Amino acid sequence: MPSIAHLHESGLLAAILPHFAQGGDVEVGPGDDAAVVRLPGPRLVITTDSLVEGQDFLLPATRPAWIGAKAAVQNLADVAAMGARPRAVVVALNAPESTDLAVLEGISRGLAQRCGRHGTSVVGGDLGRSEQLTITVTAVGALEGDAPAVQRSGARAGDVLAIGTEQLGRSAAGLAQLLAGDHAGQHVPWHNAPDPDLSLGWGTGRTAHAMMDLSDGLVRDGTRLAQASGVLLDLDREALAADAAALDGAAAQLGADAWDWVLHGGEEHAMLAAFAPGSVPPGFRAIGTVRERPAAATPAVLLDGAEIPGEGWDHFA
Amino acid sequence: MPSIAHLHESGLLAAILPHFAQGGDVEVGPGDDAAVVRLPGPRLVITTDSLVEGQDFLLPATRPAWIGAKAAVQNLADVAAMGARPRAVVVALNAPESTDLAVLEGISRGLAQRCGRHGTSVVGGDLGRSEQLTITVTAVGALEGDAPAVQRSGARAGDVLAIGTEQLGRSAAGLAQLLAGDHAGQHVPWHNAPDPDLSLGWGTGRTAHAMMDLSDGLVRDGTRLAQASGVLLDLDREALAADAAALDGAAAQLGADAWDWVLHGGEEHAMLAAFAPGSVPPGFRAIGTVRERPAAATPAVLLDGAEIPGEGWDHFA
Repeated sequence: MPSIAHLHESGLLAAILPHFAQGGDVEVGPGDDAAVVRLPGPRLVITTDSLVEGQDFLLPATRPAWIGAKAAVQNLADVAAMGARPRAVVVALNAPESTDLAVLEGISRGLAQRCGRHGTSVVGGDLGRSEQLTITVTAVGALEGDAPAVQRSGARAGDVLAIGTEQLGRSAAGLAQLLAGDHAGQHVPWHNAPDPDLSLGWGTGRTAHAMMDLSDGLVRDGTRLAQASGVLLDLDREALAADAAALDGAAAQLGADAWDWVLHGGEEHAMLAAFAPGSVPPGFRAIGTVRERPAAATPAVLLDGAEIPGEGWDHFA
Repeated sequence: MPSIAHLHESGLLAAILPHFAQGGDVEVGPGDDAAVVRLPGPRLVITTDSLVEGQDFLLPATRPAWIGAKAAVQNLADVAAMGARPRAVVVALNAPESTDLAVLEGISRGLAQRCGRHGTSVVGGDLGRSEQLTITVTAVGALEGDAPAVQRSGARAGDVLAIGTEQLGRSAAGLAQLLAGDHAGQHVPWHNAPDPDLSLGWGTGRTAHAMMDLSDGLVRDGTRLAQASGVLLDLDREALAADAAALDGAAAQLGADAWDWVLHGGEEHAMLAAFAPGSVPPGFRAIGTVRERPAAATPAVLLDGAEIPGEGWDHFA
């Protein structure tokens, strides 16, 4: 495939736009100044997030379609975590002129396919030049009627902490494999394109007292939820033991600790939620309890009542 | 001011978030997975656009607050051009770690202030690292009731072509001054932070048959509107003569042609619209007529009935 160096914007758009099928709720799709989408209600849910080459992905270590899928997931998950179904996204794509057209097409295809699984249309975007390939997606949904947003701040002492995935830590395991040069590592695909069940967010997750998606690791994100709610989260080692055990083989190969991946691994995008006791719905499993926080100086997340060493991912650390 | 190299994400947010005042329509502002905004209706209008350092601006040739204002304007104008008032924006800000915190603060302040003039809240965003400072803004509004979107495709033969600015070409003149090393040039501020009356879009512009904002020059954007509508635009040299004359001094200094700036200069973001004959509303002025297009081979934009040499701005040319 040719690079995009000699393509005009219209040529690029002609290659990319066919990937973006429009749903019946789209009144005006790509091509005008802005898109028009009929939401199920006027209470808009909106989030934005970028993937930057060299920072968030390495082109030789992933696939264009995975980049697009990951750019989708990290945004769709944020809308889902408020209890809303994502309805549309827009994408700003900035790329060096040496970029293969096939890369931009692959990203567009991966983005559109991942969005399409939930009926989310890619309704518009912007193309430009930059030194690093950069994909910024904005996702929107709507809360229906007067349904409350499921915020981070609603967890109460006595709630059950639950997670909407069968297996934590795979994204971190895949990253470790990539960083060790094992591009064919078992968990690399999940790191490059994590695929949690986002529909839990606008499905059974709507009954949660508090919810968020796991971007930066269970401990770091759990701390955010705990602090927003003024509570303490006590993780249950037994409930997470199978997650760690499943990654023990990969960890042993790399001289790593699978528990680090489970507790601190980022980019899972699974739903982390607090439910009333006895009310953990299908799709979620209990991984701890919500307790009163005795003092602000106490760590906000414990494991079997004890402090947890280590930290999650900080984009600026 | 220190660079952001040693700041954690939370420290950066603490410096930036105070600039983002939230309107009464914001149910959930920055800090949760996504923001929640109550729109005046469920028919969402959405657009996204980036500014990239070295591509769209040069840090030594502008001011941080201008970068923020321009990132706002180019998006607010797209929502306005559909006939909708922008209600909220989100911003993805990626920056090298050598960036002064003051630069990010200035961008945030400029963004928030420009948005605030129309009651538009900056409701959320994302911070990350990159080699080039990159600001991607997504702006949203809503069409009220069953009000039609003002698209590019509605112009009809016999309509009057009108523009919502007193003066075209200043942004291109400012760019030419910058490129000639004249950072204090008279038109540099307008290039760095164009300030057209966007409220025309959701005000009197709503009566237009077709509307768009001028991003890439009168001829290039006019061609898009003409092609979308299947018509021809005939610009009136006399109606534009004062625009060119006002820039003659700056053009003479640079050995440039002021008509090039008026006809082809990008980044004005003024509203270009087609109105029924005799119905050009306050804030707009007639600059041409809409005619039937005799054949697809004919240029879609003429000046006093004659072909126009030159081209507008293509981000990928």
